[in-house]
Amino acid sequence: MLIVGERINTSRKAVNEAVEKRDAAYIIADVQKQVQAGADYIDVNAGSRIGSELEDLIWLVEVIEPVVNVPLALDSPDAQVLGKMIRKVKQRPMINSTTAEASRLEAMKVVVQERDCDIVALCLDEQGLPKSVDMVLANASRLIDGLMGVGVPLGSIHLDPMIQPIGVDQKNGLLALDTIRRLHQEFPGVQTICGLSNVSFGLPNRFLLNRTFLVLCLGSGLRGALVDPLDQKMMTNIMVAETLLGRDDFCMKYLKANRAGKLKG
Amino acid sequence: MLIVGERINTSRKAVNEAVEKRDAAYIIADVQKQVQAGADYIDVNAGSRIGSELEDLIWLVEVIEPVVNVPLALDSPDAQVLGKMIRKVKQRPMINSTTAEASRLEAMKVVVQERDCDIVALCLDEQGLPKSVDMVLANASRLIDGLMGVGVPLGSIHLDPMIQPIGVDQKNGLLALDTIRRLHQEFPGVQTICGLSNVSFGLPNRFLLNRTFLVLCLGSGLRGALVDPLDQKMMTNIMVAETLLGRDDFCMKYLKANRAGKLKG
Repeated sequence: MLIVGERINTSRKAVNEAVEKRDAAYIIADVQKQVQAGADYIDVNAGSRIGSELEDLIWLVEVIEPVVNVPLALDSPDAQVLGKMIRKVKQRPMINSTTAEASRLEAMKVVVQERDCDIVALCLDEQGLPKSVDMVLANASRLIDGLMGVGVPLGSIHLDPMIQPIGVDQKNGLLALDTIRRLHQEFPGVQTICGLSNVSFGLPNRFLLNRTFLVLCLGSGLRGALVDPLDQKMMTNIMVAETLLGRDDFCMKYLKANRAGKLKG
Repeated sequence: MLIVGERINTSRKAVNEAVEKRDAAYIIADVQKQVQAGADYIDVNAGSRIGSELEDLIWLVEVIEPVVNVPLALDSPDAQVLGKMIRKVKQRPMINSTTAEASRLEAMKVVVQERDCDIVALCLDEQGLPKSVDMVLANASRLIDGLMGVGVPLGSIHLDPMIQPIGVDQKNGLLALDTIRRLHQEFPGVQTICGLSNVSFGLPNRFLLNRTFLVLCLGSGLRGALVDPLDQKMMTNIMVAETLLGRDDFCMKYLKANRAGKLKG
């Protein structure tokens, strides 16, 4: 599966301090560890730094790009910021994210015409978080139509089904799993991606819920996730699940990871 | 999910020795731990003790029944043995098992007419292990027709999709998962059950594969499993997956297990 390393986010205290102090060594060490652990993209998010987000992102990209060989996921709630960043990265980026809200989607359609890119598309609209599979599918359809209409290939669109907490409604886990399956049935060739941590909001022992939910999501067909690649038990669950799902030829990755002592469970 | 505790099996060295020495204390301690850990049934298998299987099973049942409040799963490859045991247990038993092989199924149809019971039905026939979902479904259909024809209710039939090793064919995991889903689609109301350990045959770190596969099976709709209830990580995975799948009202079982320090992952 596609692993987007989520650690470079200024909502994390240590990252915020490093950005504040322009501590490049901290950032470099962190992203190198993420890549070493298996990140396919490095997500870069400075959305919490209101007023300096753009200049902080520019600094982060300048620090990170020379030291890693994976592309970046430019992560901002602000379409203007994403529009300014999309040409500043060397490798084809992932843009994180658009929603199906009309104003946001229109703004992001302008952004993605700037450059060939992947894009995360959150399946929510003006009505907020979806309450049914059908609402997600309707939002997905609008997102796909809008993005393909400006030239984004279907396979570059990463639909996020918007996982909601089971502590709020115990059916929210099933809703997300059904949604992932239906998205792949209805839109063959599209990608799916999600963050995991929302599912456990408000409950204790969240890591256990999050990493077990990822296994269930993989079983439903999920193709990518924003995770902390340094969470060894999470990464072990991903590897083991992919092996069990027939995506590891001759179980070679599993056997190699086992020999290297990387399986933590 | 339905948890059938698999520990009382004379293919396990310590159990075989306890049976050999008629060490009732060992057996009692073991089954009490299984029930305490959440077993819904205690499986009792002396199939490895050729020549004394029947008398050993009778002894085991006499030892176990007075000390536990859960029913037994009478587990034997021999229809004659099961026929003799089915009336010897106090609580309504689970009979483990029949296959779709004509001679075996005919013999087991006679057995299950002796008494109201649950029955494990292995989806294999004279051709051996199934190679496709369609072969499993064909075997399932014969099993259901045969058993319902002698009065077993659909909801008392536990179809076993016959999980095969991913080390033999990397698609075997997907085959089992697709099969579980299809069995519930094609035969609504039927039960499913399986053993987990075959999936990891020949690979290292089998417990990790087995307990991750159980999460995937639960996501595909599996209703029961033969497991070791004393495997705390396995039992944690079951509880967490059931909570994530909306089967734990208000997450109360999860919260209670967390408070009791029972979540091991």
